[in-house]
Amino acid sequence: MGYRIGIAGASGYAGGELIRLVDSHPDLELHYLAANTSAGKHQREVHPQLSNGDRVLSPVDVDAMSDLDVVFLAMPHGASAVPAMGLLDRGVRVVDLGSDFRLDSAARYSETYGGEHPRPDQLGRWPYGLPELFRESIRGADRVAVPGCYPTAAALALAPLARAGAIAGTFVVSAVSGATGAGRSADESLSFGAVAEGVRPYKVGVHRHRPEIEQAIAAHSGMAGVAVAFTPHLVPMQRGLLATCHATAPGGDAAALRSILDEAYAGEAFVSVIDDPPQTRWVVGTNRALLGFHLDRTGTAIVMCAIDNLVKGAAGQAVQCANLMLGLDETSGLPTEGWLP
Amino acid sequence: MGYRIGIAGASGYAGGELIRLVDSHPDLELHYLAANTSAGKHQREVHPQLSNGDRVLSPVDVDAMSDLDVVFLAMPHGASAVPAMGLLDRGVRVVDLGSDFRLDSAARYSETYGGEHPRPDQLGRWPYGLPELFRESIRGADRVAVPGCYPTAAALALAPLARAGAIAGTFVVSAVSGATGAGRSADESLSFGAVAEGVRPYKVGVHRHRPEIEQAIAAHSGMAGVAVAFTPHLVPMQRGLLATCHATAPGGDAAALRSILDEAYAGEAFVSVIDDPPQTRWVVGTNRALLGFHLDRTGTAIVMCAIDNLVKGAAGQAVQCANLMLGLDETSGLPTEGWLP
Amino acid sequence: MGYRIGIAGASGYAGGELIRLVDSHPDLELHYLAANTSAGKHQREVHPQLSNGDRVLSPVDVDAMSDLDVVFLAMPHGASAVPAMGLLDRGVRVVDLGSDFRLDSAARYSETYGGEHPRPDQLGRWPYGLPELFRESIRGADRVAVPGCYPTAAALALAPLARAGAIAGTFVVSAVSGATGAGRSADESLSFGAVAEGVRPYKVGVHRHRPEIEQAIAAHSGMAGVAVAFTPHLVPMQRGLLATCHATAPGGDAAALRSILDEAYAGEAFVSVIDDPPQTRWVVGTNRALLGFHLDRTGTAIVMCAIDNLVKGAAGQAVQCANLMLGLDETSGLPTEGWLP
Amino acid sequence: MGYRIGIAGASGYAGGELIRLVDSHPDLELHYLAANTSAGKHQREVHPQLSNGDRVLSPVDVDAMSDLDVVFLAMPHGASAVPAMGLLDRGVRVVDLGSDFRLDSAARYSETYGGEHPRPDQLGRWPYGLPELFRESIRGADRVAVPGCYPTAAALALAPLARAGAIAGTFVVSAVSGATGAGRSADESLSFGAVAEGVRPYKVGVHRHRPEIEQAIAAHSGMAGVAVAFTPHLVPMQRGLLATCHATAPGGDAAALRSILDEAYAGEAFVSVIDDPPQTRWVVGTNRALLGFHLDRTGTAIVMCAIDNLVKGAAGQAVQCANLMLGLDETSGLPTEGWLP
Repeated sequence: MGYRIGIAGASGYAGGELIRLVDSHPDLELHYLAANTSAGKHQREVHPQLSNGDRVLSPVDVDAMSDLDVVFLAMPHGASAVPAMGLLDRGVRVVDLGSDFRLDSAARYSETYGGEHPRPDQLGRWPYGLPELFRESIRGADRVAVPGCYPTAAALALAPLARAGAIAGTFVVSAVSGATGAGRSADESLSFGAVAEGVRPYKVGVHRHRPEIEQAIAAHSGMAGVAVAFTPHLVPMQRGLLATCHATAPGGDAAALRSILDEAYAGEAFVSVIDDPPQTRWVVGTNRALLGFHLDRTGTAIVMCAIDNLVKGAAGQAVQCANLMLGLDETSGLPTEGWLP
Repeated sequence: MGYRIGIAGASGYAGGELIRLVDSHPDLELHYLAANTSAGKHQREVHPQLSNGDRVLSPVDVDAMSDLDVVFLAMPHGASAVPAMGLLDRGVRVVDLGSDFRLDSAARYSETYGGEHPRPDQLGRWPYGLPELFRESIRGADRVAVPGCYPTAAALALAPLARAGAIAGTFVVSAVSGATGAGRSADESLSFGAVAEGVRPYKVGVHRHRPEIEQAIAAHSGMAGVAVAFTPHLVPMQRGLLATCHATAPGGDAAALRSILDEAYAGEAFVSVIDDPPQTRWVVGTNRALLGFHLDRTGTAIVMCAIDNLVKGAAGQAVQCANLMLGLDETSGLPTEGWLP
Repeated sequence: MGYRIGIAGASGYAGGELIRLVDSHPDLELHYLAANTSAGKHQREVHPQLSNGDRVLSPVDVDAMSDLDVVFLAMPHGASAVPAMGLLDRGVRVVDLGSDFRLDSAARYSETYGGEHPRPDQLGRWPYGLPELFRESIRGADRVAVPGCYPTAAALALAPLARAGAIAGTFVVSAVSGATGAGRSADESLSFGAVAEGVRPYKVGVHRHRPEIEQAIAAHSGMAGVAVAFTPHLVPMQRGLLATCHATAPGGDAAALRSILDEAYAGEAFVSVIDDPPQTRWVVGTNRALLGFHLDRTGTAIVMCAIDNLVKGAAGQAVQCANLMLGLDETSGLPTEGWLP
Repeated sequence: MGYRIGIAGASGYAGGELIRLVDSHPDLELHYLAANTSAGKHQREVHPQLSNGDRVLSPVDVDAMSDLDVVFLAMPHGASAVPAMGLLDRGVRVVDLGSDFRLDSAARYSETYGGEHPRPDQLGRWPYGLPELFRESIRGADRVAVPGCYPTAAALALAPLARAGAIAGTFVVSAVSGATGAGRSADESLSFGAVAEGVRPYKVGVHRHRPEIEQAIAAHSGMAGVAVAFTPHLVPMQRGLLATCHATAPGGDAAALRSILDEAYAGEAFVSVIDDPPQTRWVVGTNRALLGFHLDRTGTAIVMCAIDNLVKGAAGQAVQCANLMLGLDETSGLPTEGWLP
């Protein structure tokens, strides 16, 4: 008998990945699928690529989920807070893939998302679900805020070097993501005719993940005044995310810097530092993060991190957190073999 | 009667674009198509998308080209120097799309490409064919070295700000290119199965275009000690190149910085500064470069430049240079309407 | 001074192509751009890839268009009939890219589209705008119904063989189209995330272009009882359409059948029969149709036709018709050089 | 302890899929990886997306494989026969993914592939590894010839209807495949620049899979004179194959025809008949085949079959056969959850 699992927001891309991962997990058992506008549909209507299509999506009803062990929330921004608190009140663990509980202060929240947070008392109380950097706070927790896809990659790349005091200055993060990163919606600007054969920078300098990246690096490293210049780009692929991160490494020694990364991730099941520049193809379908490192002749440390935006950048990391929350093997049920040939 | 034109290296991607552009140019007339391994083939075998397929590709023979007015050389690295000098000796103007004559000193050449340059006396004597930055040296010249695709975009983005003294520090250039940027060849790593659905950083920090970018910015701006950290990426699209460039703007004022760019390109037919982040889709098929600008809260100036790597980044810029060399209208025969809907 | 041109439905994909083609046409001059939901926007908001972005889209107002020479209607199904008749009443020639006036009888219309046609008296009175098959009826006409993309390719492939009595039985047309063929709209099923990396048959056996294909072949050939089995597929590319057409050729002789096609299109500027199987890449960006032919050992004639769905399959063919209507050179302003390397 | 498995031809696309499937199979254990030109390389050099990268590829040496239980041969055409027979002589079961032992007579082989078969005595003696059609001959066998990707899809679509006597005439099979179907090689015509944004018919009417399709349908159905007109197309996606098959259904009744398919695959774990046209996206990554059916108004039965060319069309079907050969659960270790969202 496995833990009883619910997924709210089951009709989106991350929701579909959660279904796949939970269904193949040896210790988790899917008992409740919920969605807002798709409630009432069969699973096959929203995820024809998966089996068990006869399941019907229920409404997002916290009472109906009160007997579950863990609920994953994969809802749009702003939609998590109310069901999350309702579930916690009913003794249900919550893994929130949304952004509602990631930031650690009401000020940072308002500056980033605008408006008031409905439960400012909660900010700073949710462990940030990036196990390789914040494992102990996640273990046994009843609530976890799963990081955004870009912050996952950028923090994995930069936080250990910052913690070692090896890098300084403004960090420049130039990142690319596949189209599923924008979510599943009817939006002409995300149509095949508008995305294929093009590269599109967006929200340049003002993306909401920028403060989250700074916060994650600062929290792990203790470095003061972390500042990140961040430019995300949409590229014509389905999945995959690469953050190319640049930082000044004064008096840097390439081997020493590389060692910091090697040691930071020694023994990690999902994060590896490799000798070649990491390609997103090598991680698509997996919960892995591949790091590459180069110190160039200008003294700039270039750290690249490739992840699958829907797995290590969302659903996989969420399951990794749930494993820690439940005291299971952290790697349980998580894929490591890439899909692309 | 138009000027008599030859193209050597006609079987590659840039060669095909040159054929298209010369054929539709009101003042140029294509008289000689040459290639090395493809000599003897019909044009339709190498460029089935073009008309005039009955043409036969000749060998690269400078004597046979001695009655031409201009020859475009679109050869692999290292293959231009000998035919270029042979053509110049015969009084034929040369527009070299290769890298043989771009760098301005034997030292920089050896450091970048290894080995000795066959004609070091020529280095520094070829105008660098980026008209918006070096127009006067190109006008009327008998030889021009056309810039690489990445240097075109990066220099257009950064050189005016450097010239105005508005930016400082190491410039971070993170750029992406479509697959035609790697040239046309039988290479498993460039197969559809290896490129689609992935992003691939390559030659991180050591790409041969890095010194060329530094040289171009320094030459235009007079800035001393220009230093560039450069990371190119291959993305799954056919054409298009975006350089996302970052530089510290101490005490920067966004409007003032933007004005520098606006003024630098006021009156230019092919370069525009726009308000939205530029997408490569908007320039594919054209000789245009679109610039976008943002000064973020860290004081980092982010300048993006989108071009078609085969047009403004190669064949189109070559024709633009030839127009200047021949005293024609600089815009003659050059496309400005994008192809992608 | 050119003819005065209007485009209604200017914000869609075909509308954008019409703008490009009219702007580069030596004898046409664009005076009126109209759209329904996009009225009031600047051209650059809907077609950032084109120049002349300052133009503003007007409403679809027939009075405002009454001084034009030709109006192209690129409207959704059912939206053409009223403005078309209003324009004709005002003495303005109409080229309709929609499906309202393609079918030749009210019965066929109702069976195909459902409902009553608002002007059944017009059905059968509009020349069918496929010049290579119906040139004489288009020349000098004041109204033309431009064929659908699939019917263009399928009729070009099959009609000459049917006319020669060389093929029999049910014709099997299996066709693929790029995503722009579905139009420009906010539709999750057309998102990059839903289209990339997949092939999708749709409207199998019931697509509205099936009766149009039958009608076109019958009208050109005089063959009785033309029957077509038609299966369209969406494939992950932006533009391009290939119809692979199969017909029984009883006692067929490959050379003789090929000759029928060769002779049918001898002298045509835009249609060629080639020896290799035609690829859509070779025609994208052009008004060309490339045909390939094979008679296999089962006696099945396989005729392939590749076109650009937005040019020969829509906007280019519309301009070709307008040229004939106005007595201009039929090829004027129409591109023949493919875009893809 | 699992069965001891070898894979020869491990560096190609099908080889990589075999590694993935064997590594995750509960009853199989990978003991030998072999390749020809890639012998001596580490697995990570040829399949960086997979773990266990430290493995080294050995030469294809039958003596070194003599203690294995099963060897999968994923070699180029013509390269299987000698190692296959060597392995069988040493008591090793062979699953051949190549085409050497698929055809059932020396005459058909010579006509299709040219030349003499090295072991004509073997032709007709290898079970054809399509379990849903030929299960009993595969069960317990020591050698199996795994079908080609196109024959798998086409035979699944047509064989049950042929067996029921419900279809007649020449069957028209128009099929599309992703680029991995062409194998992994350095070939300019398979480069991203040559494949993206295009559809390419190839080997029209003469593809080597045509006789194999005919043979498979005839063998399953007993129908005499099976004739197939076959046109394969390359489309710009990595994986996935769709066969759209057409056959005359004289006096056909749609429900009755559909019932034949439903009954043929009732109880099958991997083959389903669905109500919507099947998309390749829904099966990529799985060993499933999805069938769709429509009887159109011309009396043409249109049967579509979507598979992943590398799984049900190659490596997955090979493992399915091995399961039957070894007396394991036929579905053991085979994926059913699709990858694409």
